[in-house]
Amino acid sequence: MTILAVGSLAFDDLETPAGKMDNLLGGSVTYFSLSASNFAPVQVVAVVGDDFGPQEESHFLGRPIDLDGVIRRPGSCFHWKGFYGSDLNEAQTLQTDLNVFADFAPVLPDHYKTAPYLFLANIDPRLQLEVVNQMSARPKWIALDTMNFWIDGSRDALESAMKEVDILLINEAEAKSLAGERNTIKAAHSITTMGPSIVVVKRGEYGSLLVAPGICLPVPAIPMEVVIDPTGAGDTFAGGFLGCLASKGNLDEPSLREAMLLGTVMASFTIEEFGTKKISLVNKSDVQERLTLFSRMLGLSGT
Amino acid sequence: MTILAVGSLAFDDLETPAGKMDNLLGGSVTYFSLSASNFAPVQVVAVVGDDFGPQEESHFLGRPIDLDGVIRRPGSCFHWKGFYGSDLNEAQTLQTDLNVFADFAPVLPDHYKTAPYLFLANIDPRLQLEVVNQMSARPKWIALDTMNFWIDGSRDALESAMKEVDILLINEAEAKSLAGERNTIKAAHSITTMGPSIVVVKRGEYGSLLVAPGICLPVPAIPMEVVIDPTGAGDTFAGGFLGCLASKGNLDEPSLREAMLLGTVMASFTIEEFGTKKISLVNKSDVQERLTLFSRMLGLSGT
Repeated sequence: MTILAVGSLAFDDLETPAGKMDNLLGGSVTYFSLSASNFAPVQVVAVVGDDFGPQEESHFLGRPIDLDGVIRRPGSCFHWKGFYGSDLNEAQTLQTDLNVFADFAPVLPDHYKTAPYLFLANIDPRLQLEVVNQMSARPKWIALDTMNFWIDGSRDALESAMKEVDILLINEAEAKSLAGERNTIKAAHSITTMGPSIVVVKRGEYGSLLVAPGICLPVPAIPMEVVIDPTGAGDTFAGGFLGCLASKGNLDEPSLREAMLLGTVMASFTIEEFGTKKISLVNKSDVQERLTLFSRMLGLSGT
Repeated sequence: MTILAVGSLAFDDLETPAGKMDNLLGGSVTYFSLSASNFAPVQVVAVVGDDFGPQEESHFLGRPIDLDGVIRRPGSCFHWKGFYGSDLNEAQTLQTDLNVFADFAPVLPDHYKTAPYLFLANIDPRLQLEVVNQMSARPKWIALDTMNFWIDGSRDALESAMKEVDILLINEAEAKSLAGERNTIKAAHSITTMGPSIVVVKRGEYGSLLVAPGICLPVPAIPMEVVIDPTGAGDTFAGGFLGCLASKGNLDEPSLREAMLLGTVMASFTIEEFGTKKISLVNKSDVQERLTLFSRMLGLSGT
């Protein structure tokens, strides 16, 4: 039930209304693997520079996270500088230094090539396709995340990549842009004709929505009084969502519903602290406790 | 289990991406009573002009809606002209003609003064207080809606009115403004210290959130592919929510949860057509059918 995850390992400088923190370990596969590893083993493919040392590796220790696919290159890791104003749903990019990520060419270790599940985090769709092509057997499912940069600038490659995948995770504004639809539900349905049969629309503090043939699951976010830093919430959600699906081994409606709840639960941890400070400490019993609380809020179990 | 509702009867000129319609019957008590009357009898207090005739009255026929408290004055009804761009969550007011509403002085017929439940729709908080003072017995609960115009311009009167009420229904941006809090959940909790013990935050297409001591209920909206006109959705929600509570006769958590679902269901009808075109045709079996569908989406009953 291992998930192979391809994406970025990075350092982030973050400023939110709660404060300012520099050089935090970030990147999509960091949040994804810390989250998903509560449910399923994760194999990571990424590229890092000389600044990724034992201290950074220690974040992943003690969890079923395999870093054999992390390539080391001379130089620095991908570095992102972001700012959030009072609207915590919207990050403003202040600076992006691709560094070693500029020439990222994913190479899967042999023991990764038979992973039953594959998550292609938000990177160039050409690289996403390359990873799919390196698999020795077609995974049971492939999930993909993307963003406006690729929707606007690499549409053809993105469309080719989408044809290969079963599940798309995407922000609400980007779903509308991808589908050319103003209505979110119509946009999600429209995307199910582009390749993925399951579309998960991420709506920030308003939760998420899953659309698949005959299935429509709206899920609110867990109401949080304290939101310190939303960075990584989407990849953390993907980790909970896909980790749960990998542990279940199927994509039926009850599994999809439980996965949506667990994605929501995991994301709620990440936003409570800067960077990975909280999510890196979360264990299965924390997850179960918050899932029980959330299920009660939703009326899904006794109060 | 009758609800006394005080608010506006109006004509609306509406423009949305779906089209343009003029002189539609609108106003808060119109939407509220059409919605609530599926669950409980409604007594209406409002003021109308000469342009409110038998054709307008016919909208309320065949429902347990008592119009004895509707005062007639020479002149025209309140008239609102609104525009919605691609963001259907946000109405732009193009024109407001108060007309007879400018001098609205609610006078309760004697048989209204013992209503067990009272809804004070969004009007001047001084008038809301006057209505409370005209009741011969304190209702079992009083609910109030308000908006930025009163939060910014009549803060003292609004605070006095809020001290008299049990339930506040309010839009998200207005909840934040009223509480002086950026975080919606904090804002709602803060408002529960100002008088109402139950606060319902309306979030447009993202649903709603109820906060009360020891209770936090986030409810997504029903995903709708077709949204023609959001006008009246909030008052329609209030009608379903309060109508359900009036029919239950108590404010325990299961009743509050069911009321939130029914508010959501009723609002989903209103937005499907311009004005009251859809909600005026909805009957109990339509409500039950959509409630069943919505409950299934939320995983609250078998699929």
